[in-house]
Amino acid sequence: MDLPFGGAKGGIAVNPKTLSRDEKERLTRRFTQELRKVIGPNLDIPAPDMGTDPQTMAWLMDAYSMQEGETIPGVVTGKPPIIGGSKGREDAPGRSVAIITQLVCEYYDQQLSETTVAVQGYGSVGANAARLLDEQGATVVAISDVNGAMYDPAGIDTATVPSHDEEPEAVTEYADTVISNDELLTLDVDVLIPAALGNVITEANADDIAADYVVEGANGPTTSTADSILADRDVMVIPDILANAGGVTVSYFEWLQDINRRSWSLERVNDELDEEMRAAWDAVRTEFENRDITWRDAAYIVALSRIAEAHEARGLWP
Amino acid sequence: MDLPFGGAKGGIAVNPKTLSRDEKERLTRRFTQELRKVIGPNLDIPAPDMGTDPQTMAWLMDAYSMQEGETIPGVVTGKPPIIGGSKGREDAPGRSVAIITQLVCEYYDQQLSETTVAVQGYGSVGANAARLLDEQGATVVAISDVNGAMYDPAGIDTATVPSHDEEPEAVTEYADTVISNDELLTLDVDVLIPAALGNVITEANADDIAADYVVEGANGPTTSTADSILADRDVMVIPDILANAGGVTVSYFEWLQDINRRSWSLERVNDELDEEMRAAWDAVRTEFENRDITWRDAAYIVALSRIAEAHEARGLWP
Amino acid sequence: MDLPFGGAKGGIAVNPKTLSRDEKERLTRRFTQELRKVIGPNLDIPAPDMGTDPQTMAWLMDAYSMQEGETIPGVVTGKPPIIGGSKGREDAPGRSVAIITQLVCEYYDQQLSETTVAVQGYGSVGANAARLLDEQGATVVAISDVNGAMYDPAGIDTATVPSHDEEPEAVTEYADTVISNDELLTLDVDVLIPAALGNVITEANADDIAADYVVEGANGPTTSTADSILADRDVMVIPDILANAGGVTVSYFEWLQDINRRSWSLERVNDELDEEMRAAWDAVRTEFENRDITWRDAAYIVALSRIAEAHEARGLWP
Amino acid sequence: MDLPFGGAKGGIAVNPKTLSRDEKERLTRRFTQELRKVIGPNLDIPAPDMGTDPQTMAWLMDAYSMQEGETIPGVVTGKPPIIGGSKGREDAPGRSVAIITQLVCEYYDQQLSETTVAVQGYGSVGANAARLLDEQGATVVAISDVNGAMYDPAGIDTATVPSHDEEPEAVTEYADTVISNDELLTLDVDVLIPAALGNVITEANADDIAADYVVEGANGPTTSTADSILADRDVMVIPDILANAGGVTVSYFEWLQDINRRSWSLERVNDELDEEMRAAWDAVRTEFENRDITWRDAAYIVALSRIAEAHEARGLWP
Amino acid sequence: MDLPFGGAKGGIAVNPKTLSRDEKERLTRRFTQELRKVIGPNLDIPAPDMGTDPQTMAWLMDAYSMQEGETIPGVVTGKPPIIGGSKGREDAPGRSVAIITQLVCEYYDQQLSETTVAVQGYGSVGANAARLLDEQGATVVAISDVNGAMYDPAGIDTATVPSHDEEPEAVTEYADTVISNDELLTLDVDVLIPAALGNVITEANADDIAADYVVEGANGPTTSTADSILADRDVMVIPDILANAGGVTVSYFEWLQDINRRSWSLERVNDELDEEMRAAWDAVRTEFENRDITWRDAAYIVALSRIAEAHEARGLWP
Amino acid sequence: MDLPFGGAKGGIAVNPKTLSRDEKERLTRRFTQELRKVIGPNLDIPAPDMGTDPQTMAWLMDAYSMQEGETIPGVVTGKPPIIGGSKGREDAPGRSVAIITQLVCEYYDQQLSETTVAVQGYGSVGANAARLLDEQGATVVAISDVNGAMYDPAGIDTATVPSHDEEPEAVTEYADTVISNDELLTLDVDVLIPAALGNVITEANADDIAADYVVEGANGPTTSTADSILADRDVMVIPDILANAGGVTVSYFEWLQDINRRSWSLERVNDELDEEMRAAWDAVRTEFENRDITWRDAAYIVALSRIAEAHEARGLWP
Repeated sequence: MDLPFGGAKGGIAVNPKTLSRDEKERLTRRFTQELRKVIGPNLDIPAPDMGTDPQTMAWLMDAYSMQEGETIPGVVTGKPPIIGGSKGREDAPGRSVAIITQLVCEYYDQQLSETTVAVQGYGSVGANAARLLDEQGATVVAISDVNGAMYDPAGIDTATVPSHDEEPEAVTEYADTVISNDELLTLDVDVLIPAALGNVITEANADDIAADYVVEGANGPTTSTADSILADRDVMVIPDILANAGGVTVSYFEWLQDINRRSWSLERVNDELDEEMRAAWDAVRTEFENRDITWRDAAYIVALSRIAEAHEARGLWP
Repeated sequence: MDLPFGGAKGGIAVNPKTLSRDEKERLTRRFTQELRKVIGPNLDIPAPDMGTDPQTMAWLMDAYSMQEGETIPGVVTGKPPIIGGSKGREDAPGRSVAIITQLVCEYYDQQLSETTVAVQGYGSVGANAARLLDEQGATVVAISDVNGAMYDPAGIDTATVPSHDEEPEAVTEYADTVISNDELLTLDVDVLIPAALGNVITEANADDIAADYVVEGANGPTTSTADSILADRDVMVIPDILANAGGVTVSYFEWLQDINRRSWSLERVNDELDEEMRAAWDAVRTEFENRDITWRDAAYIVALSRIAEAHEARGLWP
Repeated sequence: MDLPFGGAKGGIAVNPKTLSRDEKERLTRRFTQELRKVIGPNLDIPAPDMGTDPQTMAWLMDAYSMQEGETIPGVVTGKPPIIGGSKGREDAPGRSVAIITQLVCEYYDQQLSETTVAVQGYGSVGANAARLLDEQGATVVAISDVNGAMYDPAGIDTATVPSHDEEPEAVTEYADTVISNDELLTLDVDVLIPAALGNVITEANADDIAADYVVEGANGPTTSTADSILADRDVMVIPDILANAGGVTVSYFEWLQDINRRSWSLERVNDELDEEMRAAWDAVRTEFENRDITWRDAAYIVALSRIAEAHEARGLWP
Repeated sequence: MDLPFGGAKGGIAVNPKTLSRDEKERLTRRFTQELRKVIGPNLDIPAPDMGTDPQTMAWLMDAYSMQEGETIPGVVTGKPPIIGGSKGREDAPGRSVAIITQLVCEYYDQQLSETTVAVQGYGSVGANAARLLDEQGATVVAISDVNGAMYDPAGIDTATVPSHDEEPEAVTEYADTVISNDELLTLDVDVLIPAALGNVITEANADDIAADYVVEGANGPTTSTADSILADRDVMVIPDILANAGGVTVSYFEWLQDINRRSWSLERVNDELDEEMRAAWDAVRTEFENRDITWRDAAYIVALSRIAEAHEARGLWP
Repeated sequence: MDLPFGGAKGGIAVNPKTLSRDEKERLTRRFTQELRKVIGPNLDIPAPDMGTDPQTMAWLMDAYSMQEGETIPGVVTGKPPIIGGSKGREDAPGRSVAIITQLVCEYYDQQLSETTVAVQGYGSVGANAARLLDEQGATVVAISDVNGAMYDPAGIDTATVPSHDEEPEAVTEYADTVISNDELLTLDVDVLIPAALGNVITEANADDIAADYVVEGANGPTTSTADSILADRDVMVIPDILANAGGVTVSYFEWLQDINRRSWSLERVNDELDEEMRAAWDAVRTEFENRDITWRDAAYIVALSRIAEAHEARGLWP
Repeated sequence: MDLPFGGAKGGIAVNPKTLSRDEKERLTRRFTQELRKVIGPNLDIPAPDMGTDPQTMAWLMDAYSMQEGETIPGVVTGKPPIIGGSKGREDAPGRSVAIITQLVCEYYDQQLSETTVAVQGYGSVGANAARLLDEQGATVVAISDVNGAMYDPAGIDTATVPSHDEEPEAVTEYADTVISNDELLTLDVDVLIPAALGNVITEANADDIAADYVVEGANGPTTSTADSILADRDVMVIPDILANAGGVTVSYFEWLQDINRRSWSLERVNDELDEEMRAAWDAVRTEFENRDITWRDAAYIVALSRIAEAHEARGLWP
């Protein structure tokens, strides 16, 4: 995504579900104290992941700010908007999946109004992607959650179906026809969006994928063996690091808002996200066309070339 | 206004009128030296108030910058534009009064072209508000300064009347008909803008206010008793913290220009001010509508809710 | 240009052509170490000049960042874009020459489509200026490099002639008619753009300059004696500090991108450059008109007045 | 005392006796957070006073160190020795009273073995002073606490009488003869040491003071009127700022141990305290002799001359 | 040892013997760069260990100093004396073993002149200990290196036998009688000093140890099982953390010299080491006597009590 | 002298005699502001030289401290003692000359009581040296100032002759016999101390120097040609960088007192100076003996070897 963010992870080996709110707060603040020398708005900027949420990030920000003696919202992203979080951050991954899906259709001259879509996983990522594509004219024929999939070849009115986060049982309860998650994956649709878990398209079902385009909404939904099978079958797989990059991109926007001390409207966030996704798409597309490779390889080439070029320019010293 | 600025005041117990320019400079520089640990572009950002002016802010900025060893314009707002001040700052409070007045009229379906306005105080705030409303089609029937009020039911051509700052005696000199300040307040106009001093609408005259809308340009022009009377009489009072917030808002813009190191054109300042005022208006209007309260209470609810929400998110530690 | 950049130079007394790449890297890094206390993104910001290039700036940035312990792209401009350099920086000086030339023609009611231009020096500055003017309808009749000038009174298709940087011998090789650099300077054109070396318009040839407008693309192409002669002859000379200021302006843009952590598209760089050049032109034009002086004097008055005004406001203390 | 320590006080308006240990800890840590910019080992160094104790100082030190990210014992004195406090600090004020008393006797050729002493207040200051003088041969004939005074003209064995801190009721319980505190003050002894409260020697009893030398162990035991009466009567009063300066002196030693990172043995603390007290005595004695004034005036002249001389040398700028 | 130093270890997984000097220098400098935020003279102070030497520490110090922009010798100990290392550091562990051995003899009324000593390991620690004890009158009957032990019941003139570091084969070459290392351990001497490797006194030979006192010069020469056997047999074992603590103590002295910017003479280093060792001995002896435990347990109780007391005083927050 | 001080000079091209006190203060403070990034207690520490005095250093210290926000006495040496200067600094160069002279005599078995001394220059350096040698039993036969020399073969009572600083005309006025400065230099004494100006022992008079030992009190009193002549004639010349190093040594002591925050008594300053001078003498003497060279060459070898050894250990990177 050409963002000036690096990548590292840190964590505490603890089950947050066993902790009281007070314990979580104390633990977060102490962790921040221990990390304080190696994080910072110009150094390493944490963001929430499993077991943490905006409240955790708020404590981290407050602890760091107290240590430094001034409010430093840019030390962490994923904060509540009232203390420097970005509008639109929650919806960003699903939104980027929808944007990339549109660009794929455009690229392959597939009219959105004549496109059928199946979405596995109707949580934050999947529901947002489905609704945005629905709004833009696509026909969403299947959506699922852990309980199974709603299927309607005439198209689902996604605006009226609560997401799994909004109402956990809604998908199957609202459905006239319920099919299994496995069936959903092999529906004969134009676009398949696996947006639930990793490793759902495997050696076992890769040959049965009937979609022309797979847009990865989840992290790592396709095993590498399945990836090869799909490539051989000319099913186009748009990789996760491109398709669901809306999350990290809006994290970057949050940081920009924090260090430049100006919050953006939701409209601006969405417009800038759109622009960033298009630029990333163009860069990947160029490699895809120039080198005659899969979309996934093209995405990796773009990413690694940037790192290599920057490393070459700066050098490593000593 | 949803600005990332806190609130505190500091000062020196001295009468600046008795000081030479050199003494004022030395005093300002020493004061800055004493305060240096507790002010800063990310800490506490002074702005001018009674007895200080842009020159004072320039000295403060220079003293602070010399202490820190680099130019830090963002430590203070209200500077001369040549060293990091914002264009449009002087006019901002009056401009915000005009913007809010328009929004009030719009909200109550009161055509501006059919609206009469009386403005008490024709200094920086009042003259700017009057002229902007005049330009947009309102009929300004009265303006005043300490010497009395010019009154013309046919509408005053405000562009041709110098403000009190430009020409101290102009208001009454240029007037065909002079009325008193007290008479001005009780004129039967649509909008009354008290933009001179605090505590001018009191228990004594609140029942005589004939305007439908009072837009507070001065700080605290309405006593709390008068406020209750006006509320009972269904006179809509738009409070100062909303109406004249243009000043602090452009202080924020100045700081943004300073820390992001890019000056804005006057046009951009005015456009962004307009946008901020509308956003603030929308937030207050929502509370006004949802809770069926006065505009003043709505404004306070907006302000205090934001503080409470941020406080809740960050916590206080230890 | 009203940029918040000061001016100083530093260097190492060494011939970089005699150094290996490793020696240049070590020397640059040591130099950065020695300078580290007096440079910085808010202090003094180097940029490349003779004998240095984007790679040198990359080493300087890396060395400084390593010393400070975090990546600080804003310490230096002229970096490769991959590590924080700006798009469009290379082309900026020529682009500003073209913009100013257009503004000159507009000001003197000289239709660009009826304007002939001679450009001395077809390197980065001259070729960019020539091509942009060509695109906008001007007739470029002569371009030159160190080997001589291509001359075509019907107009040269500049897009098809490689610049001196792109193909060193191209100008004379592609020419049907070759004239000397001296002849180029005295061609009877509307606009003469000396964009090669300093001191090419001198006492010796000032009387022979036949152009109505001289737009200085090089630094100091006109000697001060020649300047007086041209002034007496009413030849309008637009000085270098205005005409080729695109370079330093985009250096400023690079710094903005670095400190605000957002890169700009090429389109934005060019738009903002256009805006800055127009603002600078307006400021100089105002002095030119108000004081009835040469364009050069007007430019100096604008520059020095700003410094004086800022100095007056801040004071010098102690 | 010629120590590089300034003087300021800060506090919280709260009754610590109503707070739990946890509340005291939280309050101390928050107070430290609020003060952090204006305290520091090279800036302002708090020490305990009423309502605070070594534990409070430990929390302050830990809170400050946590904010700064490294252990900084020198930010505060009066800490427990295990974390950087000084040995001998508790006993220092009483020790300095004893040292000064000896020097007074020496100066006036009064053999210690033939000297009688009455000590009002048998707490930390008084008990330490009494025992040290007892050890060195003086005859301590009276000691007191809030309950009254033990009186024995043959001399009290102070080593065997627990201090008020060690055993609150001991003084009167162990006594054969009990007199009142008022009686103690007017005993016909050589040296009277008021080491309890302020304002005990007043206009009312100044004429009845029968001692030749009054060595002030408490802060401000003599009112200014009483001071004049004693001066007229040629009773020598050694002022508190000299006599009980052992406390602040060992605070300085604690700070030295902290910033130089080496703890001192108790023996070294006592030896250096002795040396500092003698140097202070010499300086005051010199003024006393040269100017023929009271000891109190001599002490003030020494103190103020040092401040004036330093101020003159450094200047005040701006 | 009551030193204000904590304990942590860091390293690079590499075999330094396979690296060139240049590679070692680069690796050390890069390692320092990566660690720079978490080391520092008031933070964490590395010292050499396996695979590193004074030159490594010199590079670390230079790299850190270059990053910080000023010479900071106190960031690391074990440096060459010319750049801030301490005199006497190499000899300190052996010296402390000798001091403790003397104190043991004194404590048990064992005249040194009538004491026989066997030293396993004649490297830096063992040779220094042996020579110092020899000088003070003890009879050193056996010394060894990896090749075997020199044995002479009449006493070895240790000054004339080069240490293993000085001349690797000397011990056995200079010997008239050579015995094995195992035999040395079970010699019937008063004092046995295992100063070679860890785990040499084990379950297998603990019952055969004939010495009355074992003073541990190496780190961990006695297994915990052997320790119990010796305790049951009333062999007194003085633990390593007391006996060979001279090394870390002089590291502390080096740091003091660095942060206080004054180098100490060798004589002062040795005197202060003696004083510190005696203080440590006294603290351990007190616990040994009060609690009737082994010397090892007494040493641990001293160490852990200090940590606990400091922790209790400061608290852990949050 | 093995001091951790480097060497650089900075100055302002101005004649301080033409400046008012206020101008000197302002100039010093501004100079400090400009230098602030490159001076500091751990960086570069100025000291007074021509045209500056303790007051100048006091302003520099105050200006620097104000910039940094805390009192930092260690930034500069040569301050008035009241604000952190060292006792004994003024007398230190003369004292070191006397110490070295004693050591020379001792080394060459020359009894001080049988030694005659001539001192050229009876200012701060010369008078101090003369008086100290006189006190220790030497016979000072000649002293001089710019007006000529007092000569008394029986020995001058230096305690009774005011120095040139104390009473400018005293030397010749108090003299019974006056000789010229040139005559003084060639007196047949044991020790000649040129302590006035540079370049007084030249090719012209080197052959006439009758002293056995020349101890350089001034900077550079011997030209290099004269130095060779004296060497050939076996006159021992003790070089200035050893003999008058007391000044820089006490500057180092002042800095130690400042950074460790403890002032030293005059006695301690003199004792420590004595110790440092003896250590320096020993180091130079060792080279003198080992290499059979002049004392000057020995001193340079000591100095340069230390620099080389430190440089070798640290390396230069990059």
